[in-house]
Amino acid sequence: MSVLVVGSVGIDDVKTAEESHKDLLGGSASYAAVAASFFSPVNLVGVVGSDFPDQYRKLYQAKGIDITGLEIAEGLTFRWSGEYEVDMNNRNTVSIALNVFEKFEPKVPESYRKSEIVLLANIAPALQSMVLDQMDKPRFVIADTMDLWINIAKPDLLKLIKRVDMLILNDSEAKLLTGVTNTVVAGHEIQKMGPRYVAIKKGEHGCLLFGPDQLFAIPAFPLTRVPDPTGAGDCFAGGLAGYCAQQKTIDFQVLKEAVLRGTIVASYNVEAFSLKRLESLTLVEIHSRHEQYKSLTTI
Amino acid sequence: MSVLVVGSVGIDDVKTAEESHKDLLGGSASYAAVAASFFSPVNLVGVVGSDFPDQYRKLYQAKGIDITGLEIAEGLTFRWSGEYEVDMNNRNTVSIALNVFEKFEPKVPESYRKSEIVLLANIAPALQSMVLDQMDKPRFVIADTMDLWINIAKPDLLKLIKRVDMLILNDSEAKLLTGVTNTVVAGHEIQKMGPRYVAIKKGEHGCLLFGPDQLFAIPAFPLTRVPDPTGAGDCFAGGLAGYCAQQKTIDFQVLKEAVLRGTIVASYNVEAFSLKRLESLTLVEIHSRHEQYKSLTTI
Repeated sequence: MSVLVVGSVGIDDVKTAEESHKDLLGGSASYAAVAASFFSPVNLVGVVGSDFPDQYRKLYQAKGIDITGLEIAEGLTFRWSGEYEVDMNNRNTVSIALNVFEKFEPKVPESYRKSEIVLLANIAPALQSMVLDQMDKPRFVIADTMDLWINIAKPDLLKLIKRVDMLILNDSEAKLLTGVTNTVVAGHEIQKMGPRYVAIKKGEHGCLLFGPDQLFAIPAFPLTRVPDPTGAGDCFAGGLAGYCAQQKTIDFQVLKEAVLRGTIVASYNVEAFSLKRLESLTLVEIHSRHEQYKSLTTI
Repeated sequence: MSVLVVGSVGIDDVKTAEESHKDLLGGSASYAAVAASFFSPVNLVGVVGSDFPDQYRKLYQAKGIDITGLEIAEGLTFRWSGEYEVDMNNRNTVSIALNVFEKFEPKVPESYRKSEIVLLANIAPALQSMVLDQMDKPRFVIADTMDLWINIAKPDLLKLIKRVDMLILNDSEAKLLTGVTNTVVAGHEIQKMGPRYVAIKKGEHGCLLFGPDQLFAIPAFPLTRVPDPTGAGDCFAGGLAGYCAQQKTIDFQVLKEAVLRGTIVASYNVEAFSLKRLESLTLVEIHSRHEQYKSLTTI
């Protein structure tokens, strides 16, 4: 089975207290698609401008990602520039230029329409819905979102999440969406809004997975160096979706395994800027960290 | 084996967004001693004033806690008044009256001196050291601390932690003590300051346990209601210490089990104000939540 990933594709400038890098491959779909590619075939839907570097197109292809659905529009690629504080949990957006993204209307190529797993990576919920409209009965739909859409497009988001099997968001976003301060209660409230499954990401503190009357809590993989946390959440979603695509049935047990794969891939991603670490990452390394994770978290 | 617990004993007024309670039993030693009592005999060292309610003395005794070392000094018992914001991670101290605590010099009764496990619950590090001076070669010494002592008594604290086997503190305190922003690195840095083992508490996000070249990460027990988080950290330390006292040897494996017991007892404690939940808590309930915890955190 394959995963369809739709989301943003962009060029990022990222500054941390220690380093500064320009013209990096970024965007939720880039991270999610590459993360998913370790586990299953990936079909990418997104938009770039005519300036999109060929090396980044080649990076997708090296990971076996189908980019038939990566539209090349006239104009410049979406750009984002961000700066992390010394406490990397705090990030400030320095600038955003939507560019070709402003008029983007995702088109799902005919060859993608039977993708059984759909990952609606973080973009405007109206665009996420447009993709769903074009799909041919996907088996499992996952949507990621962020505070921006809760603040400016809540009605669209509420419409969307009625149509998805799983919503992924972080703990502060879960509280923002529900108006509830307890994370566990927030997860249950979101389930009432539609999705049977909810994953609440807590960054360095791991995640909570909610199923029908089920709950699963895991820590993150403990890291001593996090040069660039950008894209960790997208990789979590991508690894999770890619793992699901390998499975015959998708139930709570499979999703527990899936969030663990997402956690492992995300932990590698933050070890270097942009997608540099995932470029060289191997399945052997994923398995090795998976084993290490088990010994770090099991009595 | 028994645990000696020294720390503060106080009367608390606690206000949350939903409830307000006055004249509650509080103090680090109260929470830690009661939590430890589920697993082993406990010897308490502390000070109260002549106003200390008899019902609280009886509460200790009902838990089998030896209060020979609970000094009754002339004057009033230590009082603390605190208020939680809607986000319970934020707590403000409304008032503190040290009262008899101001001149407290802990005296370890002769009958306590051979206690094999010593838990120096949160009080000034100079007082914690005084207790150690009076002990007869304890097998395992655990110290808990807080930001206040890092800020106003760092030299005393650094002297103390060279003498302990394990230091317990929360993640922001670990960063404050070491000046390091990564929690895992902070744990390693603290180990270099003396203690072979370090437990970093992360509240609702669980904890990290550091041993010699070893690391263990666990989530907290997910709760939907936390009426009063006061004393959770003290109960974690107490449960951990009490469990250790049951064991023949204390190594990383035993400490992994111990932090789990601390986590479970702490999760019960926050279900009601003061020690009200632990008053009625049974070992059967602890075992039952332990099983539930395993299924919530294991694939």
